[in-house]
Amino acid sequence: MVLLGIDPGCRFAGFGILKKEGGKTFLIEHGLLKLKATEDLTHRIKQFYDFFNEKIITHHVTHLALETPFLGKNAQNFLKLGYLRGILHLLSAQHNLTIYEFAPRQVKLSLTGFGGAEKDQVARVIGHLFPGIDPTLKNDVTDALAVTLCGLWSISSV
Amino acid sequence: MVLLGIDPGCRFAGFGILKKEGGKTFLIEHGLLKLKATEDLTHRIKQFYDFFNEKIITHHVTHLALETPFLGKNAQNFLKLGYLRGILHLLSAQHNLTIYEFAPRQVKLSLTGFGGAEKDQVARVIGHLFPGIDPTLKNDVTDALAVTLCGLWSISSV
Repeated sequence: MVLLGIDPGCRFAGFGILKKEGGKTFLIEHGLLKLKATEDLTHRIKQFYDFFNEKIITHHVTHLALETPFLGKNAQNFLKLGYLRGILHLLSAQHNLTIYEFAPRQVKLSLTGFGGAEKDQVARVIGHLFPGIDPTLKNDVTDALAVTLCGLWSISSV
Repeated sequence: MVLLGIDPGCRFAGFGILKKEGGKTFLIEHGLLKLKATEDLTHRIKQFYDFFNEKIITHHVTHLALETPFLGKNAQNFLKLGYLRGILHLLSAQHNLTIYEFAPRQVKLSLTGFGGAEKDQVARVIGHLFPGIDPTLKNDVTDALAVTLCGLWSISSV
């Protein structure tokens, strides 16, 4: 089972890839896809598609984990998030992945034991679980790792 | 210049393809992509991608025309519309198309002379402009033809 968790964004998209094998969990890769604000949206969407298409192929990803989006103050940002999520649904269908979605509260609860936890608190738990990773990682990456772990645990417990 | 206009939807997606050559406009194709409500969203998104990918290749489409979406009463529908628009941005980047966007008022204004026109009024104008088409076409198709025409006229007048 190889799980790709993504925190999508039109400027920064954090991701984490975890593999479960023989009862053990391995952190395969994690990082941040940076998309230039100066590029038009159409080309950023293609970069997003190409980037994750390559990751899915390279690491033989089988599952995708995402947070359920919510409509914030800015409807246009919500719509753009929809663009990227549409791309992830397409990749999912093209590579036969199963998508798991979790509400933000659910992710925080499963990581920290508290559904209203702050991003920094989530980041600290991620730091404890993966002692090797850079402690100055952006929240986009720790959030992506959090949703990946949440996905892994929820699948493992079925 | 070959223009593809789409009125995207997760159940029905209307489309029209117009070609401009030697000062004349030709209606190449128009119709409705029906997506089954019983299929999951991921597969419908792939069908949407495959369908329009094929149309773009077959008819050598050069431009895409879309209506600007607006946030209605249902945020989830707005988000799903975002999924489909993300797919159209991807296709656009993959095939080097130029995307033209028009506000619904702009489309109605350019077709009927009145920005607040009803869908049936738009459909009647489409019926006059293309006397050969089926007068019982769904509004998803006449709306798509309207945005395609609007795109064609706005490019031609540049």
